[in-house]
Amino acid sequence: MNGAAPVRVAAVGCGYWGPNVIRNLSETPGFDLRWICDADPARLGSVAARYPAARATTRIDDVFEDSDVEALYLATPVSTHYDLTRRALNLRKHVLVEKPLATTIEQAEELAELAAAKRLTLLVGHTFVFSPPVRTVKALIDSGMLGPIYYVETTRVNLGLFQKDVSVLWDLGPHDLSILMYWLGEVPVHVSARGRSYLGEALEDVAFLTLEFPSGILAQLQISWLAPTKLRRTSIVGRQKMIVYDDLEPVEKVKIFDRGVDHQPASFGEFQLTYRSGDILSPRVDTTEPLKLECEHFLDCIRTGRTPDASPQSAVDVVRVIHAAERSLRCGGAPQRVYEPDVAMERTS
Amino acid sequence: MNGAAPVRVAAVGCGYWGPNVIRNLSETPGFDLRWICDADPARLGSVAARYPAARATTRIDDVFEDSDVEALYLATPVSTHYDLTRRALNLRKHVLVEKPLATTIEQAEELAELAAAKRLTLLVGHTFVFSPPVRTVKALIDSGMLGPIYYVETTRVNLGLFQKDVSVLWDLGPHDLSILMYWLGEVPVHVSARGRSYLGEALEDVAFLTLEFPSGILAQLQISWLAPTKLRRTSIVGRQKMIVYDDLEPVEKVKIFDRGVDHQPASFGEFQLTYRSGDILSPRVDTTEPLKLECEHFLDCIRTGRTPDASPQSAVDVVRVIHAAERSLRCGGAPQRVYEPDVAMERTS
Amino acid sequence: MNGAAPVRVAAVGCGYWGPNVIRNLSETPGFDLRWICDADPARLGSVAARYPAARATTRIDDVFEDSDVEALYLATPVSTHYDLTRRALNLRKHVLVEKPLATTIEQAEELAELAAAKRLTLLVGHTFVFSPPVRTVKALIDSGMLGPIYYVETTRVNLGLFQKDVSVLWDLGPHDLSILMYWLGEVPVHVSARGRSYLGEALEDVAFLTLEFPSGILAQLQISWLAPTKLRRTSIVGRQKMIVYDDLEPVEKVKIFDRGVDHQPASFGEFQLTYRSGDILSPRVDTTEPLKLECEHFLDCIRTGRTPDASPQSAVDVVRVIHAAERSLRCGGAPQRVYEPDVAMERTS
Amino acid sequence: MNGAAPVRVAAVGCGYWGPNVIRNLSETPGFDLRWICDADPARLGSVAARYPAARATTRIDDVFEDSDVEALYLATPVSTHYDLTRRALNLRKHVLVEKPLATTIEQAEELAELAAAKRLTLLVGHTFVFSPPVRTVKALIDSGMLGPIYYVETTRVNLGLFQKDVSVLWDLGPHDLSILMYWLGEVPVHVSARGRSYLGEALEDVAFLTLEFPSGILAQLQISWLAPTKLRRTSIVGRQKMIVYDDLEPVEKVKIFDRGVDHQPASFGEFQLTYRSGDILSPRVDTTEPLKLECEHFLDCIRTGRTPDASPQSAVDVVRVIHAAERSLRCGGAPQRVYEPDVAMERTS
Repeated sequence: MNGAAPVRVAAVGCGYWGPNVIRNLSETPGFDLRWICDADPARLGSVAARYPAARATTRIDDVFEDSDVEALYLATPVSTHYDLTRRALNLRKHVLVEKPLATTIEQAEELAELAAAKRLTLLVGHTFVFSPPVRTVKALIDSGMLGPIYYVETTRVNLGLFQKDVSVLWDLGPHDLSILMYWLGEVPVHVSARGRSYLGEALEDVAFLTLEFPSGILAQLQISWLAPTKLRRTSIVGRQKMIVYDDLEPVEKVKIFDRGVDHQPASFGEFQLTYRSGDILSPRVDTTEPLKLECEHFLDCIRTGRTPDASPQSAVDVVRVIHAAERSLRCGGAPQRVYEPDVAMERTS
Repeated sequence: MNGAAPVRVAAVGCGYWGPNVIRNLSETPGFDLRWICDADPARLGSVAARYPAARATTRIDDVFEDSDVEALYLATPVSTHYDLTRRALNLRKHVLVEKPLATTIEQAEELAELAAAKRLTLLVGHTFVFSPPVRTVKALIDSGMLGPIYYVETTRVNLGLFQKDVSVLWDLGPHDLSILMYWLGEVPVHVSARGRSYLGEALEDVAFLTLEFPSGILAQLQISWLAPTKLRRTSIVGRQKMIVYDDLEPVEKVKIFDRGVDHQPASFGEFQLTYRSGDILSPRVDTTEPLKLECEHFLDCIRTGRTPDASPQSAVDVVRVIHAAERSLRCGGAPQRVYEPDVAMERTS
Repeated sequence: MNGAAPVRVAAVGCGYWGPNVIRNLSETPGFDLRWICDADPARLGSVAARYPAARATTRIDDVFEDSDVEALYLATPVSTHYDLTRRALNLRKHVLVEKPLATTIEQAEELAELAAAKRLTLLVGHTFVFSPPVRTVKALIDSGMLGPIYYVETTRVNLGLFQKDVSVLWDLGPHDLSILMYWLGEVPVHVSARGRSYLGEALEDVAFLTLEFPSGILAQLQISWLAPTKLRRTSIVGRQKMIVYDDLEPVEKVKIFDRGVDHQPASFGEFQLTYRSGDILSPRVDTTEPLKLECEHFLDCIRTGRTPDASPQSAVDVVRVIHAAERSLRCGGAPQRVYEPDVAMERTS
Repeated sequence: MNGAAPVRVAAVGCGYWGPNVIRNLSETPGFDLRWICDADPARLGSVAARYPAARATTRIDDVFEDSDVEALYLATPVSTHYDLTRRALNLRKHVLVEKPLATTIEQAEELAELAAAKRLTLLVGHTFVFSPPVRTVKALIDSGMLGPIYYVETTRVNLGLFQKDVSVLWDLGPHDLSILMYWLGEVPVHVSARGRSYLGEALEDVAFLTLEFPSGILAQLQISWLAPTKLRRTSIVGRQKMIVYDDLEPVEKVKIFDRGVDHQPASFGEFQLTYRSGDILSPRVDTTEPLKLECEHFLDCIRTGRTPDASPQSAVDVVRVIHAAERSLRCGGAPQRVYEPDVAMERTS
């Protein structure tokens, strides 16, 4: 930022979410927004009008062919992620692509390997990993203050905001999966999932997932497009302390409950359980927009070459877990391994 | 109440919950509380002092041998339910026994059959079935206003209040299971369960259950003794309307969300989904104590011979579901049938 | 909208609030945003960049001298409202000016009379009058369903967001006063006020007001910049029903409590009071941005010549009440008349 | 407790509130409950049946004439407080009397002086002074952590629970007044009050009070029997920290907001205000029943002769403030002095 030349970036995709990221890219000092691209001229026009300094195009090849462009932001339909990301990486352009990275494990892995081989930044838009309350919870977990973590329970439901082309598992699932793996530093071993396609034909609109992590931590996820009220609530239950993270709370998004359970030796060798009911602390949480932090992190990774927090490998793992969940859904909820046994050992060692 | 002689009742067990029911029995006009019994003299004394008109004893045989006693209330440890209930029924005494009815399916079924054969009232203390908000939800479901029900999700968690002799599945599970079967009028076909024994050795203190009902309704239950905050929240999601029942809300315990999803035929044969966001109604809910209604219902069943709302058969089904959940827990969450296929057909036909 | 030529409008003032209104003006189809003006070049630049079709200037005379400009939006410091509004009206330009209309009663009245004399639209930015939940409450009151209204209580507090040049009375007071007069269709007769200047020298940062309306309705207002949590909560208590309007509730902003008190004649001519506890209804509230509705209303008034809902006269009355409150503050809380007795009669008849 | 003979106590009055206190007196080890008295035989019977060891009577003279009785608890109608308390004190019996101590200032003062002269304990049932969250707030204030206190705002409203014989000022007012004087250690100098008698003839059912304390602290009270929802919420706003005490919160009754306003000297001698937004702490609050603590305090004062926390003098001050508020109500809200100027000086010095 200190005098370095700005990174020339192009934004592709002006749909629901894209404009928010484009606004942040344009406001991040180290970026120089060169192109805005969308196949739909009307949609392109309405967004591009706000950034007169950038060039607008409906032809993505304009972007790819501009050798000045060093980095791409992709907010295109999920089905295009693999092709466009691969093409960009092969043209030696850094990529920030919306989640999920790809729809198959093989494609996701190929992209992760390609980025590594080319030493390019590949950041997947798991935006919650950059959200200040999620970061605050991460710091609290890492501090060890919770004691051993017993389980995590999370609810992410609302009414509507359907996606037509993917299930709720692919739409809302990546949020909680990327958060959980970021917090725990682990990839689940087993996943079981139940769900239903009430509205569409084959795409689940409601799903319940149970994840088992190598450390023994259990996580339960509820994701739904069909709920009476919007809820974004996660409990992390540790032996010493417990945390509630509620993203809809205007101020007290994170609460630390100083309660727990002690094992105390009783007189005759038997264990006695005592409950501690204590203070509740809601730490001050930074209110910076997560997208701003994501864009700054993208810039920082491009400049320093460091691996992003929402790394290609973690994006691959998200895709793996979703595939395992889909297999479990297809066989009535039976638990499925995320990695083949030999790979799992490698991943979790 | 209408001039009929009062029913002579004896109360056995003065522990945590018993005194609440005893108080209600003593205040129900049609009952005449004759005995209070507890093996522990100190516990007996402190409770019996409040009911000078009843006789106190530490010997349960005093109660059984008193041929004047027509009905028994049993709030004794779970392990004694089968023996004491069977003995009482064989002595031709009506029984109100705390949940669960028994610990094995065979014993539960034997008691249900015995009560039927002797034409005696056997009411199991699934108290929530008598709770006014649960009744209000039942009436709303039965009215058909929700449209087809998609799924139910329920959370019943708190910190502490452990039982030493049973798992959270046996302690908190019967509440949600009896409520669900009462609401839906169905017994689940399959159950899958995950859980953990974090504090004790073999008794789960946290469990997640998924139930599948014959009609296709999915239910997800979270029960835990290890949670940062007490929660008692159930969502019932129907196609036309949705209900949230939160037992901890002081006033608005039941809320009806006039939102739903319509399938509308779009112009070219494709389905179009539209979301209706509408009014929210919190109906007035009666505030009568559930135990009072339970005691009055017990009296009414004794006098009229009608089958109780918390019927012996539904109590057997609760035990069956818990056993299926335990089997699922033992094999890593694989779904288990509640009834053998041939029996299931009979039960759900 | 129906083929009529768009109204050419200029926006003056790009501070805290102005940009929101400018965005809405620019998006209202019937307006043609011609000028953006701010004396501070930096502030002007950052806002004007988003509207390349409008001309930017730091000289307000450019705006006044442009005879094409038919209407002005003024978001300038309070102390300039009178001068700029008068000048615009004298140049036969319609005006939307931020609240308060002026700082003295005489100036406010002069502007109201000038607008009337010139048959120009003068709309004061009492934005809450255009807010959907406030409109919903207005419709509920007008329907008569509340029965006679007993009293209104309102709390509008937060921490910070101080204004340096005016007291909390002038900053937050106009919101509640304009809402109350809009709802009740009355101007208060008496005002008493207590307050304190804890932080500054002479400008109150906390104030409590009591208003008495001609109908006998009592209203209590709490306004503060020094509160632990942000609150925006109003209760309207009627004999038949009561309403709670909480602007911070994400969904249930308006709740109607079907409770009230009945006077029932008891047996010996004495009145018996009975309380009805009933349903609670949260009606669906439109989520359109109030500023959008305000801009559309401004356009509609310009085109049709109708008197705005936030009329010049109501804006004068807001200024009158604040002056009466300040007099009460200066004499220790003694109630003050809003109008001289003879004028009051005229206003409230 | 330490071997001392129990204090022989009699309870007079078995209406709405009395039974709660009687239960606690009977469970406090150092008391020996000798008599239960109520003029209404039915009411007496239903309460007395629970305490077979105490004698029941409808004649209060039985109690007064029993020289064994050392202490009296009076839960009789407000109009009888003066006569019965005076008679008891003259018979050298300690008294715990429900609030308000008396209806006139003269009578209240006479009783306070009589108790002092006879060296008897006179405890007035300002129960909230013994409530753990109120005590927690007191400790926080006394610690100085709030910095200078700016103002206090309190809301105590609900629907119904009318008293027929007193106004809301006499019914709910003593709670907030006793709490405020306990917290601040001051008696208000001025009171202004507005209110209405919507339902009855002359008894206010809604009142708004403003109190000014000698230190300059302002307090605003809202008390009402006519509100859509029950609220018990107090904010204490200090320069360093702020507290919200919400008695209806099940767990987080007290919250400390680590936010405040700093006066920082800016570069050119002008004051600059900065807002600190910080952590929120909800300290663990003891859950002991306030009445239990009140009874134990009564016993302790009897045995040690120490002045009660809810002292006769503070009870007199509560009566004084209510009288000043009533004077203000009668003259349209004009502020009234609580003490005559010379007395005030003495009280607050």
